[in-house]
Amino acid sequence: MAKSKFEYVRLFEVDDRCLPNTWIVVRVDGKGFHKFSTEHGYEKPNDIKALSLMNRAATSVMEEFKDICLAYGQSDEYSFVFRKETQAYSRRSAKLSTNVCSLFTSAFVYYWKEYFPTIKPRYPPVFDGRTVLYPSNQNIRDYLSWRQADCHINNLYNTTFWALILKGGLTPTEAENKLKGTLSGDKNEILFSQFAINYNTEPEMLRKGTVLVRRKVPVALPNGGTREKSQIVQEHVDIIGDEFWNTNTHLLTFT
Amino acid sequence: MAKSKFEYVRLFEVDDRCLPNTWIVVRVDGKGFHKFSTEHGYEKPNDIKALSLMNRAATSVMEEFKDICLAYGQSDEYSFVFRKETQAYSRRSAKLSTNVCSLFTSAFVYYWKEYFPTIKPRYPPVFDGRTVLYPSNQNIRDYLSWRQADCHINNLYNTTFWALILKGGLTPTEAENKLKGTLSGDKNEILFSQFAINYNTEPEMLRKGTVLVRRKVPVALPNGGTREKSQIVQEHVDIIGDEFWNTNTHLLTFT
Amino acid sequence: MAKSKFEYVRLFEVDDRCLPNTWIVVRVDGKGFHKFSTEHGYEKPNDIKALSLMNRAATSVMEEFKDICLAYGQSDEYSFVFRKETQAYSRRSAKLSTNVCSLFTSAFVYYWKEYFPTIKPRYPPVFDGRTVLYPSNQNIRDYLSWRQADCHINNLYNTTFWALILKGGLTPTEAENKLKGTLSGDKNEILFSQFAINYNTEPEMLRKGTVLVRRKVPVALPNGGTREKSQIVQEHVDIIGDEFWNTNTHLLTFT
Amino acid sequence: MAKSKFEYVRLFEVDDRCLPNTWIVVRVDGKGFHKFSTEHGYEKPNDIKALSLMNRAATSVMEEFKDICLAYGQSDEYSFVFRKETQAYSRRSAKLSTNVCSLFTSAFVYYWKEYFPTIKPRYPPVFDGRTVLYPSNQNIRDYLSWRQADCHINNLYNTTFWALILKGGLTPTEAENKLKGTLSGDKNEILFSQFAINYNTEPEMLRKGTVLVRRKVPVALPNGGTREKSQIVQEHVDIIGDEFWNTNTHLLTFT
Repeated sequence: MAKSKFEYVRLFEVDDRCLPNTWIVVRVDGKGFHKFSTEHGYEKPNDIKALSLMNRAATSVMEEFKDICLAYGQSDEYSFVFRKETQAYSRRSAKLSTNVCSLFTSAFVYYWKEYFPTIKPRYPPVFDGRTVLYPSNQNIRDYLSWRQADCHINNLYNTTFWALILKGGLTPTEAENKLKGTLSGDKNEILFSQFAINYNTEPEMLRKGTVLVRRKVPVALPNGGTREKSQIVQEHVDIIGDEFWNTNTHLLTFT
Repeated sequence: MAKSKFEYVRLFEVDDRCLPNTWIVVRVDGKGFHKFSTEHGYEKPNDIKALSLMNRAATSVMEEFKDICLAYGQSDEYSFVFRKETQAYSRRSAKLSTNVCSLFTSAFVYYWKEYFPTIKPRYPPVFDGRTVLYPSNQNIRDYLSWRQADCHINNLYNTTFWALILKGGLTPTEAENKLKGTLSGDKNEILFSQFAINYNTEPEMLRKGTVLVRRKVPVALPNGGTREKSQIVQEHVDIIGDEFWNTNTHLLTFT
Repeated sequence: MAKSKFEYVRLFEVDDRCLPNTWIVVRVDGKGFHKFSTEHGYEKPNDIKALSLMNRAATSVMEEFKDICLAYGQSDEYSFVFRKETQAYSRRSAKLSTNVCSLFTSAFVYYWKEYFPTIKPRYPPVFDGRTVLYPSNQNIRDYLSWRQADCHINNLYNTTFWALILKGGLTPTEAENKLKGTLSGDKNEILFSQFAINYNTEPEMLRKGTVLVRRKVPVALPNGGTREKSQIVQEHVDIIGDEFWNTNTHLLTFT
Repeated sequence: MAKSKFEYVRLFEVDDRCLPNTWIVVRVDGKGFHKFSTEHGYEKPNDIKALSLMNRAATSVMEEFKDICLAYGQSDEYSFVFRKETQAYSRRSAKLSTNVCSLFTSAFVYYWKEYFPTIKPRYPPVFDGRTVLYPSNQNIRDYLSWRQADCHINNLYNTTFWALILKGGLTPTEAENKLKGTLSGDKNEILFSQFAINYNTEPEMLRKGTVLVRRKVPVALPNGGTREKSQIVQEHVDIIGDEFWNTNTHLLTFT
């Protein structure tokens, strides 16, 4: 069983190391989650349990990969930002995307029953993954802004769409037609005038998605004192605009 | 919430399409499975249940990706061979590796309790993945031979190692020292003379790993007749050497 | 002058080695040669001197790179085929394309005055280059057929176009309009009926381009005998179709 | 002559566009220039004519590619820095490296006789090329510092080495042995004490290499006035350290 005569096949593997000194984003995306959410009775327009499960899975990923400094999730997707200098897996692109994607998926299935105790998943859910590089701080901020803008747009649409159906009695086709060509202001107006919903007071997790960062958190000590411990916390804040970044300058400055 | 001013960040994604007319292998590998198998009480040297769960997860992958013509698994790894002409995901390397890897992981956790009904997984297991290209039929055969030779070498070693410990009463260190520098013949001899084990009659799944292929299988019809149906079947055969390939010429010849 | 503190920048260079066991083609293409040929008085529709200079430059490339087994040139382009197993420059893509491209360009300028003794080049001519991989023999043959078909189509068009202008007295615009929508047969007919040109008896170098291969050629010895020597020879033959390949099987079969 | 049935081979070409918002360096390097310089009688340790020809060739490249904001040359190599935002050739890596490399080579041969009027080149000289990306301003500065430190180290060594031979009467081997293990200070001392050479007053082009940048230069008008014109100028200055960059902030800041 001479293994050596076959080992030349290893030379066909490619070196896919990411450019140094560049932000590495791994984004995972639910595959066919429109169907998955329908078949598993996700609440419309938003299912807090499903989003919480996403956050739980993402937290597992951040616990494992210490070089992820920030993660952002919304709907059925999550983006993980590795700090520029990370040497995790020697910055090999496929290693990063497959490990993150596998762990996220694994945790999603593993923790499912904590969030959906009465619903058995009907089949194994799948998330794809990709690695993308961003050279400058502005680029990585714009990437995250892009995802949060996507969250805003989709959530406003979905909130209005499902209000028209669930509270307004429209069929999906009628709701779709009614929303065709409407701007943000129009949707806010429909929500407010027809359904007395003030969109701006909807839960922030739905409107803004979830940011995961590490924070020093005080932990009680047996002797009565406290000590600081780094912990992964969920925040539902604007990452579009300067405020978040001005108060979290450490995220973009490394030494 | 103008999404458009941020959308330029999509241009940072790279086109990673695989060279056409080339075999695409996606291999998934358990991450830290030495620890995982110990913590979950896998039987030594082999746990049939664990291997069966691997085969179950791999079958899910082949059911989803019709262009996988063959898969080969052993230990905590599985290789999926996409036919040369596949256009799955436009042959994008990361799409293929992350989808296969995510589905494999998901199915592994999903079906866990069918194989380990009394053991709760202690944490979410992870598999990494990679995409490798092989241009010629000889190359893809040599790739598979490489993995099967790896199976042979490791399984013979592990069978002898654990016999020395479980039946011979050696400590792991003693067993390791005893096997240092031994050839295959020496290990076969130890197994036979000390433990009356004829290695060649050990279960083929352990010695040869598992090949998954699609076969036409007769299915009974209500009226008493049968019809042929394509089904994914497990075979524990030599893929080193010509015999398998001579009787499965369709696997390497496409039209 | 500590160089070492800056040397980390080498890590930003990428490994661009070509997939093993795959044909490597480097094609060089004249940049802006429509303008270049006009400004240097190339004869229309074809300038034998210019094509001969291309062949001379390509011969320099083949003399330097022993692993180029065949080259094919037409118009202002040349394709160099490295044998599948070549280890030249460790198969690094950019090394291969830039070395071939630089040598081709250099030889083109260097030998210019042998072919255009009375015309000084007005500025330095430029050729770009690219590396492309082809896995199978059929693929590499189809690549070369694609280039030769391009030669046929363009040369027939140009021959007819310039006959209409130079012998038929049409303006370029009139000639272009007359040829719009014509098929090969139509152009052959125009050449024959209007200008008594039988296209099939035009010089083969123009209709078929130039193949460079290495042949054993007898060389006279001082004592009156001969010995065989490998030499790069020019052939103007069909590489579309089987004939060339059936009589040159060594080109596609390596050991 | 159906070209279309072969055109599928174009799909084998890969998309090699460089990451956006990243500095692109194309470096050309003389191939076998130790031999080339000896065979063409380059003066030792430095041949001003040869360096001037390098500068002339590099100027041709900068005239052609408006997006090269700075070039740095020393010995037989030249680095061209494209501004971060360049869209030249859609940022395709091979297009950039081969075009720059071909034009540099072409101009080198083309202008040869202006610098070596009495010496015919014995064979076509070759330069290879590579494309490397640098994300940050610090990285691109460090890259250039690396090349200039290389210039310093090699030029000090060569100056001392050739003084020992040409003025000290040593053989090359004796000179090599004498310099083994010496530091910069030692070489300065040898030059000063044995040959009365103050290294710091050697020509700056030799010690520092050549920077090419575009400067507004006043041009005389027919009517007696002047107007400003952008022109490529040669400077022999320190690019290691802050001074050059502090007085040329426009080079690293784009809008």
